[in-house]
Amino acid sequence: MRFVDLIEKKKKGLEHTKEEIQYIINSVMNGNAEDYQIAAWLMAVYFKGMTLEETAEFTKAIIASGETIDLSALRTPDCPHIADKHSTGGVGDKITLILIPILAACGVPVAKLSGKGLGHTGGTIDKLESIPGFNTDLSVEELIEKVKNTGLAICAQTKQLTPADGKLYALRDVTATVDSVPLIASSVVSKKIASGADYVVLDVKYGSGAFLKTPDEACELAQWMVNIAEKLGKKFHALITSMEQPLGRAVGNAIEVIESIEFLKGNMTSDIKQLTFEMAALTLGELGICNSKEEAYIKIEESINSSKALEYFKKLIESQCGNTLVTENYRFFPQPNYAFQLKSETSGYISNIDAYKTAYACKLLGAGREKKTDNIDYSAGIYLNKIYGEYVSTGDVIATLYANDPDKIEKAMDYLETAYTYSYDMPQSRNMIYRII
Amino acid sequence: MRFVDLIEKKKKGLEHTKEEIQYIINSVMNGNAEDYQIAAWLMAVYFKGMTLEETAEFTKAIIASGETIDLSALRTPDCPHIADKHSTGGVGDKITLILIPILAACGVPVAKLSGKGLGHTGGTIDKLESIPGFNTDLSVEELIEKVKNTGLAICAQTKQLTPADGKLYALRDVTATVDSVPLIASSVVSKKIASGADYVVLDVKYGSGAFLKTPDEACELAQWMVNIAEKLGKKFHALITSMEQPLGRAVGNAIEVIESIEFLKGNMTSDIKQLTFEMAALTLGELGICNSKEEAYIKIEESINSSKALEYFKKLIESQCGNTLVTENYRFFPQPNYAFQLKSETSGYISNIDAYKTAYACKLLGAGREKKTDNIDYSAGIYLNKIYGEYVSTGDVIATLYANDPDKIEKAMDYLETAYTYSYDMPQSRNMIYRII
Repeated sequence: MRFVDLIEKKKKGLEHTKEEIQYIINSVMNGNAEDYQIAAWLMAVYFKGMTLEETAEFTKAIIASGETIDLSALRTPDCPHIADKHSTGGVGDKITLILIPILAACGVPVAKLSGKGLGHTGGTIDKLESIPGFNTDLSVEELIEKVKNTGLAICAQTKQLTPADGKLYALRDVTATVDSVPLIASSVVSKKIASGADYVVLDVKYGSGAFLKTPDEACELAQWMVNIAEKLGKKFHALITSMEQPLGRAVGNAIEVIESIEFLKGNMTSDIKQLTFEMAALTLGELGICNSKEEAYIKIEESINSSKALEYFKKLIESQCGNTLVTENYRFFPQPNYAFQLKSETSGYISNIDAYKTAYACKLLGAGREKKTDNIDYSAGIYLNKIYGEYVSTGDVIATLYANDPDKIEKAMDYLETAYTYSYDMPQSRNMIYRII
Repeated sequence: MRFVDLIEKKKKGLEHTKEEIQYIINSVMNGNAEDYQIAAWLMAVYFKGMTLEETAEFTKAIIASGETIDLSALRTPDCPHIADKHSTGGVGDKITLILIPILAACGVPVAKLSGKGLGHTGGTIDKLESIPGFNTDLSVEELIEKVKNTGLAICAQTKQLTPADGKLYALRDVTATVDSVPLIASSVVSKKIASGADYVVLDVKYGSGAFLKTPDEACELAQWMVNIAEKLGKKFHALITSMEQPLGRAVGNAIEVIESIEFLKGNMTSDIKQLTFEMAALTLGELGICNSKEEAYIKIEESINSSKALEYFKKLIESQCGNTLVTENYRFFPQPNYAFQLKSETSGYISNIDAYKTAYACKLLGAGREKKTDNIDYSAGIYLNKIYGEYVSTGDVIATLYANDPDKIEKAMDYLETAYTYSYDMPQSRNMIYRII
């Protein structure tokens, strides 16, 4: 087999055999093909796609390229399948921080691997690391042990999983071949399965703050992921959700953890609640813990009202060496030196807060990364005092910006101001969930 | 400017600016872009093409990436433009060896750069090097000096010309991005213009022995080359010609030089004559040496009947240190140890001799190269005793195979046999020229 012939085959839109797909991934791993050949193949895939069969084989081969995590020790008679969640990335997306304690409180042990933020989207690991002392660097054995003892644990992704995907992604990133549905789908599915999941609830986002811009694109990607998983004997559900505007009121790191704690204390913003409850309910239903959506919703509500979910969040912090006092007193989080208020120069209903612009302003404050090696200011962030559908008068504070550098705040404030759209009439209430696949 | 953004732009099918094209070629030359990025861009070009404007800029930038040859010293009051010819490659294609002496005899000085053979097509340089002593390794100064003294010279392409094309081609070859019309067209046109040509007559071949399979594909490529050249202020003509069957009766190296000498002695096979006369006539017309095609044909015929063209061929050999005795006695060429005859196992008219298969058989004999570093056996080759339209009886010799290894001949003979198709009725006479652009 020669790699150039496989490029030619894909260029013509033909389907690779199982052996060819295996050869491609082997070539990525052992250097038998040159990076420029792999790049040409990736571009041919961008234009000609892959069939579901090819993509499933591709996913399998990516999984087999590295270690896999065996979480079977976490299966229990009451919860015989390992559940996980995944978001394609958004702005203010703190769902993991809320969903995992809720699931744990409902009897679903979760051993979660998460990523760091890059570009305009934040990462769960960064958010957790804003809790003083919180250790996200766990071995697989430590991860499993902690879940056994406390019911939940979250740690940073190890490099040993799906190394072929890592190599391919690095190449895609610099060759404009990221936005290929089969490549994205196989990347996500391979990572989740290699992480030991039997069941995954996906949050596939669309809108200005997501990398997919339309609901149709999100549905397409979601359907691919669900189908690939099925081919590999796993059950995935996907929520197609709006990321036109930030999720909740907080965008940053410490500030999002605070919002998550508030949520678990019962102060739930409607958009976060819609997504978290639906994802939790799907999971509880699929795992056989609840028999109906109604039953699941009651159980989830109860986990919050009883403070059980909050207790699990504290357990998570304690188990991973974080300072649990943060749940009681937010002063224990890193504190910003400056807080500036953005005031409305007009009056009316807020009809849109552009998620991408909000994220960009947040990155200007120091809360995000441009490059993987950039440092993050955990205390920096934006609190949206007013959000979609709320009425503001001229001079009302619409957002508060936190950072340690006043110059950064000035720049971010100017930028954030452009994110707002107002309307005379009260806008329709938001439906966060476009579809469930 | 970031190269990844240019890949993205081409991926979307957008047109590059002049500056972007310049940046791409600069990146190829100075290593600012990685090979995998260039490969991805090339694949995007394969799928999305380039406009004529882009391709003309691309061609200009390729020319500017290296040295150019100034042949203006060869311009004369009678022949104020520098003429050249180019073939896209065929089997048994010895037109250069015949056309250049004819043009020289008609008053057109030609300083020709030629290539070596690779794959299934032969190269003019290999053919000339089968003449003992013939030196194809000339400096530009030597080339010009020889043309001034003798009216013609042919030497191997120097590496200093169009180095960006060399780098791009090496990458295209291993990334399945060779077959892109704008890339092929810019490659050819850049090389001819960098070689100092004002006017070029192109022989764009289609058929089993050519890299383009259909007349339509050949017309498309030819039109692109003519259009690009026009954008760069040069006049190109293109003949679209059939390469379904080998040109003439000889395929190899020494054997093709012999056929060329025979042609110049007046023993002209019809197919070679059609192409050579038409290319010569177009050139003489374009340069203002003849006022009509009829006048040109008479002049060309006269150059052969008077032996003037043959004399120029001898001058060429002498000037480049070859043994001129080869024109009188073919025994001075390298001699093969073995000659085997292929006999017909049927009777009928020969209705096809597959050019690709003939070339492949010839390569099996040792007359061609698979890799650039392969050695060539100049004495190896095939003589087609019977060609298209000729009647054969069972047992007639249809071809003679020459080589130095009898095992190779056996294999080549078995293969060559599969190249023949016979018909009961006499096939139509061949029209070699499909169109002139």
